[in-house]
Amino acid sequence: MRVLLTGASGFVGKATLAALLDRGVEVTAVARTSPDVPGTYRFAACDLLDGSQALDDIFSPKIDVALHLAWCVEHGAFWTSPANLDWVGATLRLARAAERHGVPRVVVAGTCYEYAWPRDGNCAEDTLLSPTTLYAIAKDATRRACEAFFAPRGIGFAWARIFFLYGPGEHPDRLVPSIARRLVRGEPAPSSRGLAVRDFLDVRDAGRALAALAASSAQGAFNVASGQAISIAEVVRRLGELAGRPDLVQIGGLADRPDEPPRIVADVRRLPVTLDSWPTIPLDQGLREALSYWQHRAKNAGMT
Amino acid sequence: MRVLLTGASGFVGKATLAALLDRGVEVTAVARTSPDVPGTYRFAACDLLDGSQALDDIFSPKIDVALHLAWCVEHGAFWTSPANLDWVGATLRLARAAERHGVPRVVVAGTCYEYAWPRDGNCAEDTLLSPTTLYAIAKDATRRACEAFFAPRGIGFAWARIFFLYGPGEHPDRLVPSIARRLVRGEPAPSSRGLAVRDFLDVRDAGRALAALAASSAQGAFNVASGQAISIAEVVRRLGELAGRPDLVQIGGLADRPDEPPRIVADVRRLPVTLDSWPTIPLDQGLREALSYWQHRAKNAGMT
Repeated sequence: MRVLLTGASGFVGKATLAALLDRGVEVTAVARTSPDVPGTYRFAACDLLDGSQALDDIFSPKIDVALHLAWCVEHGAFWTSPANLDWVGATLRLARAAERHGVPRVVVAGTCYEYAWPRDGNCAEDTLLSPTTLYAIAKDATRRACEAFFAPRGIGFAWARIFFLYGPGEHPDRLVPSIARRLVRGEPAPSSRGLAVRDFLDVRDAGRALAALAASSAQGAFNVASGQAISIAEVVRRLGELAGRPDLVQIGGLADRPDEPPRIVADVRRLPVTLDSWPTIPLDQGLREALSYWQHRAKNAGMT
Repeated sequence: MRVLLTGASGFVGKATLAALLDRGVEVTAVARTSPDVPGTYRFAACDLLDGSQALDDIFSPKIDVALHLAWCVEHGAFWTSPANLDWVGATLRLARAAERHGVPRVVVAGTCYEYAWPRDGNCAEDTLLSPTTLYAIAKDATRRACEAFFAPRGIGFAWARIFFLYGPGEHPDRLVPSIARRLVRGEPAPSSRGLAVRDFLDVRDAGRALAALAASSAQGAFNVASGQAISIAEVVRRLGELAGRPDLVQIGGLADRPDEPPRIVADVRRLPVTLDSWPTIPLDQGLREALSYWQHRAKNAGMT
């Protein structure tokens, strides 16, 4: 099986590339810059936003599954970035190219922000949709157009709604790294009251889930998540404990963000993984590894 | 006021260009080929599907309203054409260019096929949406992305859902021309049983409505329609009577199309026109003119 993977140099893309290679999948990795992931695969340098690029070369040799993760992901800015519109166009352009090249299956990354999250309970894939940010609306619009395009053409289509990821390669300003960095430096780690409940998944498990989805023939929407609910406060508290510095944790030391949805947690029963051992990386293990990583980074920074 | 009009050489575009010129609006008409409409306006030859075109030149001189009608409209084929995906991308690209160039208002053409038509009663703009064709789904996805993009940027946005148009420049295979052509040649004019009820508007009135919408500051969705219900059979019957050849009409002489929605009729109360005199071209007048036109064409064809 050969998978065309876009966004291969991104946070999720790298983990997915590694998971695909673990499965023995032949991969054509598409990105603007090389993914820098160990293993053997074909790298195709390509800016999917460049409408003058023909895209034909990335579909040779013959592709069995196109797994499209590329999108604008600039930390903080992507929610409202005009580039979201460009990515709708680029994705639909890729969809057309996939059809032209006889690709029988396409998997595209969506987001948990497409849902109208129930206040209690979890989001199943048939939970009402109500995207409100430009990012989520653009993703949702893309799914609608892709579904309508692929279905009558007999092209298998899956839409992967990704929840909250953490883990290797994460932006240092995101929740886990920002707390971990302070803890390993022995600095106070303030957070909001952290009442919001979320579904966190290690990005390597997200990569596994996406690779499994690519390899399956399952169609429709799929939540890529752990299925486990935890409050932001609890994540911060655990980091403090795992770091051996619960004294540095200051829950409520920062103002709460306005309009935080109280609960965003997935039902993951549709995911084509062994649910008994899902996630394969428990949160405590993932958080411990994050702490080690930032500890290591801090030491190396100290030595220079 | 200067209006940028795309699709200016199309069926609706030409009528809209004429209506804008009637209002004394300065127009930049964008199309691949010249609209061939009398009057003075700026013509900008541009293929909006060509992603390598910069679009900057069409926004100078300063544009007050972008009225975007261009889309794939190939008779019959547009319902399922892959080009619908390209037009989503091209429209969002135009939206970004409009924002970049400080355009304060954008009006885009949608379709009555976005609605879940009620079996009885008319479609108001807040009627449930349930597009099922690639064409309608692509239009609906475009609206969602445009709304989310324009609203927070303070750019006025209106979405014109166009119902059933007939009139000058209509494709000869569509309902009114196909019947009219047979009648003026003295040939039998068979039709289906024609039980479906529709909302027909002369394309010149559609042009007036779109020009009025462009000139207004009204936001949201607007039905571009007559608001009058008539069965397909009744349209055919009236054509026969107006042509003085009711004997040629053969209602039920052709098979009914499967899955024809029974009723697609608009509530037009949101439209910024004088409703007392709307439509300005009554159906009988429009049909009479269509007959004259095809009579004239048939005579000219006979002379060559």
